[in-house]
Amino acid sequence: MIKVAIVGGTGYTGVELLRLLAAHPEVSLDIITSRAQAGTPVSEVFPNLRGVLDLTFSQPDPAALAECDVVFFATPNGTAMTMAPALIEQGVRVIDLGADFRIRDLAVWSQWYGLTHACPELAATAVYGLPERNRKAIAAARLVANPGCYPTAVQLGLIPLLEAGVVNTGALIADAKSGVSGAGRQPKQHTLLGEAAENFHAYGASGHRHLPEIRQGLVEAAGEPVGLTFVPHLVPMIRGIHATLYAPLSDSTVDLQALFEQRYADEPFVDVLPPGSHPQTRTVRGSNCARIAVHRPEGGDMALVLVVEDNLVKGAAGQAVQNMNLMFGLTETRGLMHTPVLP
Amino acid sequence: MIKVAIVGGTGYTGVELLRLLAAHPEVSLDIITSRAQAGTPVSEVFPNLRGVLDLTFSQPDPAALAECDVVFFATPNGTAMTMAPALIEQGVRVIDLGADFRIRDLAVWSQWYGLTHACPELAATAVYGLPERNRKAIAAARLVANPGCYPTAVQLGLIPLLEAGVVNTGALIADAKSGVSGAGRQPKQHTLLGEAAENFHAYGASGHRHLPEIRQGLVEAAGEPVGLTFVPHLVPMIRGIHATLYAPLSDSTVDLQALFEQRYADEPFVDVLPPGSHPQTRTVRGSNCARIAVHRPEGGDMALVLVVEDNLVKGAAGQAVQNMNLMFGLTETRGLMHTPVLP
Amino acid sequence: MIKVAIVGGTGYTGVELLRLLAAHPEVSLDIITSRAQAGTPVSEVFPNLRGVLDLTFSQPDPAALAECDVVFFATPNGTAMTMAPALIEQGVRVIDLGADFRIRDLAVWSQWYGLTHACPELAATAVYGLPERNRKAIAAARLVANPGCYPTAVQLGLIPLLEAGVVNTGALIADAKSGVSGAGRQPKQHTLLGEAAENFHAYGASGHRHLPEIRQGLVEAAGEPVGLTFVPHLVPMIRGIHATLYAPLSDSTVDLQALFEQRYADEPFVDVLPPGSHPQTRTVRGSNCARIAVHRPEGGDMALVLVVEDNLVKGAAGQAVQNMNLMFGLTETRGLMHTPVLP
Amino acid sequence: MIKVAIVGGTGYTGVELLRLLAAHPEVSLDIITSRAQAGTPVSEVFPNLRGVLDLTFSQPDPAALAECDVVFFATPNGTAMTMAPALIEQGVRVIDLGADFRIRDLAVWSQWYGLTHACPELAATAVYGLPERNRKAIAAARLVANPGCYPTAVQLGLIPLLEAGVVNTGALIADAKSGVSGAGRQPKQHTLLGEAAENFHAYGASGHRHLPEIRQGLVEAAGEPVGLTFVPHLVPMIRGIHATLYAPLSDSTVDLQALFEQRYADEPFVDVLPPGSHPQTRTVRGSNCARIAVHRPEGGDMALVLVVEDNLVKGAAGQAVQNMNLMFGLTETRGLMHTPVLP
Repeated sequence: MIKVAIVGGTGYTGVELLRLLAAHPEVSLDIITSRAQAGTPVSEVFPNLRGVLDLTFSQPDPAALAECDVVFFATPNGTAMTMAPALIEQGVRVIDLGADFRIRDLAVWSQWYGLTHACPELAATAVYGLPERNRKAIAAARLVANPGCYPTAVQLGLIPLLEAGVVNTGALIADAKSGVSGAGRQPKQHTLLGEAAENFHAYGASGHRHLPEIRQGLVEAAGEPVGLTFVPHLVPMIRGIHATLYAPLSDSTVDLQALFEQRYADEPFVDVLPPGSHPQTRTVRGSNCARIAVHRPEGGDMALVLVVEDNLVKGAAGQAVQNMNLMFGLTETRGLMHTPVLP
Repeated sequence: MIKVAIVGGTGYTGVELLRLLAAHPEVSLDIITSRAQAGTPVSEVFPNLRGVLDLTFSQPDPAALAECDVVFFATPNGTAMTMAPALIEQGVRVIDLGADFRIRDLAVWSQWYGLTHACPELAATAVYGLPERNRKAIAAARLVANPGCYPTAVQLGLIPLLEAGVVNTGALIADAKSGVSGAGRQPKQHTLLGEAAENFHAYGASGHRHLPEIRQGLVEAAGEPVGLTFVPHLVPMIRGIHATLYAPLSDSTVDLQALFEQRYADEPFVDVLPPGSHPQTRTVRGSNCARIAVHRPEGGDMALVLVVEDNLVKGAAGQAVQNMNLMFGLTETRGLMHTPVLP
Repeated sequence: MIKVAIVGGTGYTGVELLRLLAAHPEVSLDIITSRAQAGTPVSEVFPNLRGVLDLTFSQPDPAALAECDVVFFATPNGTAMTMAPALIEQGVRVIDLGADFRIRDLAVWSQWYGLTHACPELAATAVYGLPERNRKAIAAARLVANPGCYPTAVQLGLIPLLEAGVVNTGALIADAKSGVSGAGRQPKQHTLLGEAAENFHAYGASGHRHLPEIRQGLVEAAGEPVGLTFVPHLVPMIRGIHATLYAPLSDSTVDLQALFEQRYADEPFVDVLPPGSHPQTRTVRGSNCARIAVHRPEGGDMALVLVVEDNLVKGAAGQAVQNMNLMFGLTETRGLMHTPVLP
Repeated sequence: MIKVAIVGGTGYTGVELLRLLAAHPEVSLDIITSRAQAGTPVSEVFPNLRGVLDLTFSQPDPAALAECDVVFFATPNGTAMTMAPALIEQGVRVIDLGADFRIRDLAVWSQWYGLTHACPELAATAVYGLPERNRKAIAAARLVANPGCYPTAVQLGLIPLLEAGVVNTGALIADAKSGVSGAGRQPKQHTLLGEAAENFHAYGASGHRHLPEIRQGLVEAAGEPVGLTFVPHLVPMIRGIHATLYAPLSDSTVDLQALFEQRYADEPFVDVLPPGSHPQTRTVRGSNCARIAVHRPEGGDMALVLVVEDNLVKGAAGQAVQNMNLMFGLTETRGLMHTPVLP
């Protein structure tokens, strides 16, 4: 059994990690920390876990964490970088669901996150935890930077095109839509039901923190600079991300359907839909699967890619567990084969 | 492996049976029939099952059905009673998720369902599939009438009081609220999102088909006639039933919390919450669990019971699988321990 | 033109007062105060008012308020009672949308609201602003206590029965359901869309602040003590209250439909629906109208009354404007005849 | 008073026309036809209109319609073209809210709508009812083709750029999102709350009927061919359209904010928001206003335009009334100044 701790588990990625890890057959979930909720049983904060998980939030205790095989950080940005170095030094592996280790260029990171990085040397060793790109490196990693929710969806949709070199990389557009759980469980006015229900709007149109992360991944896949416009929107629903991706084809002879099917033929969590499909976010709710459809509207020179994922699973906690499976040599799908609940 | 067929699986109870049975470790799900969808892969109709279930809808074929160990009917009312007799005669066990065998008094049944019963003799042998009341009889049954969604919630909330004889049975009130999936997957105007979202209303206030079924169960638990007012309401959400139950206490010394905890101490799918709780429907979403809280407002003589269930699981497909487990001597919880997804 | 100020207008009752008063043909809306938003244009906080209302939030200035004809308080409980005395002394009329003046028995008030009342003598002169009961007194009042949202719905549904003396007043039940805007615009975890959508639950089952207010009104209508169980629930929608009321009939010969139609024949904002109806909350969205249906399930001895209102209009801001109209001798419906938007 | 009839008023555009016209001070709303609902009071079908409108659905009667000043068609595509010629011949003016007269090229129209046009000569005289482009022609028109909901939003967002000639017209992208009321009030499976709530997806990615209509309008504004990719999506809410528009700038010196503010300076129903804004659909709910924000992400060469409208008002019934006002010489905003209800 893999001995697991979660640091900072009172948010939505936290409860999702708890749901997945509590039922994972190879995991012993021993510690979940929360300064605010220390002493409170997990099932009081998350009543869906009554009878499922008999664990109590505790104060973060470095010594106890150091005895675990792996520590997941589901903390606000800026926390993992202060605690990870000591853990890794003691042989603990770390998966950070926050953004502390996602951006390789720390100057860019500082600009978007408003912090000075606490451990630049460690950051340089972090592996970006997108298995569909970095499977081998993840398996060997001591520190995995789990991708953001939007970046996962956008990269999965564009990398087949970029790797194949069939699109004009200068004018990529990612029009992305997310349910409100992406904004977290902290009370904020704009995510009140009274504000967000029966409403739809864009946000961060002049720049969003996920933009440099997405761009970094696309550049690596393309092997050249990319021009990207990324516009996120808030959808009046709890879970789900839908990315609508536009990429002008440079090679108009390419068979897009075949390209995507081949690229993802061996990926357990990427499902390329039949031609003409429109993936629905609900079909991946609670699941680690991303579903993708590819179109060429009116047979023209625009590749249109539609991607759905559950922002809290493939976009966060599920991908983190997938990374853990890889890091510990388990079957990649272990503990992750939940059938989405529909309706 | 238990060889299983589902007749009529294109509705919401159908897809839920498919989700549960596809992952059930002791079940071989061999047949799913639908006249309208015969020839269509299940995963085209229910895209959440892509990669999960490789099965195609077929025309109902009595010979093929007769080779199964158990047949679930997820059909409109009036269908199961025409097909069940032949199956049972051939040794197949039947679980009807419709209403054909729920009401013992067939005159009452005909009055509410507008049909003449096709097999009164068989109906007399049906066991009402509420395990918390009829566990032994279910295990031995050839034909199980799976309870309705409202009746399950209301009975679970009131039977501890009625069995203990601590309430005035003449003035029971069940104010029940259901998500719209209870109205089915057939297109109807009043369950369009444009009609049902941002809206709340009662319906069937002068009489609802579930009333005689509930009353029958309460009378059996009480051992005397009961007076019941039952008012269902439509909630702008997909899944979940909340029953708010009012019962005037005849014995004001009773410890309600202890009464409920003892009554359900050994029940795997009934969770009595701590004193002062308010169960939330989302905490049982996708799960076979019912959660109950009991109050005595202002310390007065009114017992107030709050019950939540997932109308499609404990209120339909999950309870049907629970009944199957009992009928085939399996652990009662087999294939039914899904952690609810929250948020 | 009536010179109007609003104190504390950044919540949902505030924006609704703004919407109604900005379009009221006899009102000059001159002042809206907010300590937090002083200096901010109203249309920045409430973008639906762009182009509709050219007003800026200001610090509360007693001298400026004293020059108004009427001041509405849309403040947290405990604020109006500190500011109202000076205003009333200077001849300003006051309508408090909070709870400071609703409960006649100040000991009870203190018990539920946890405060010592700041102006007991003034409180004794306050008129409870339910026009359907107190129209004449409201017209003459200097200080109106605008009813709570639940109390308005429950009282409108029960007073015809209580005034007529046709029900057993010892066992009244009010099962009430509200959209989440009733919980306000301040960020709270339980009203996040991620928590409240796809969810339904009761709250305050052991006691809610609106209970003593409702009981006071029912006692006055009945002329005798009443026994009332009141259970509120949270509905995953923005606006609307639905009250389901149960009252055992003491006079089984009464014609309930006629009783309600006659009682409300002259009321401009109470609509008694035809027999057999189920009022929907959306049919009164944005409107000051309450709609009521009355049933006698299975022809028995239980009166069942269904009431809907918009909690922010007839349950708050609309009723406040209705009271203002009465206080200033205007046509009662002036500025209040908005057609509900459906769907 | 303008004598008005509505043909086919049982859908969502019908009820919205009824709401607007019933309160229009210069309109006498005399006739509303529906074959299915003939004889039923309007307020039974649309209970929000109880007490507002005392009118009964009638069979369409050509003679009675011919006595009106203007007839609105809120009928399925293909109906208006069979009835309009006779009415216009008798001097009645016609506003068609369907698609019969929107596309100038009838071969294209036939291809997308699957019908042969019944009155090509009349169609050639129809004026496309987008006042922001065709105000003068609308005023003189006998027959107005009211624009579709998506086309209104997309054209309002792009025409300032096209008219000014500052974008590359070959690679325009319109990523549009609509509430489900756009799919109508006829029961369909995919718009059930159980299917559409907690879900998001694109549709018509390979081609949507609104595409040729949008393209026609953009070509006219640009004075040259345009390349357009249009992808509509379904949002789990009732009302509202959000168009996210991407247009590569050919002139990187243009001041986009000034361009839009000047273009719409005199438009009563187009509100250009301050720089950096993100318009929300709820801020125009129930209103005829469209709100627009314009961005230049990261200061680059992509113009990003965000447009919101209420699909049933500015996208349908409200724009139809605006056109009527123009046709009859009334103030353009008459009867259309409703404040959006928020929250």
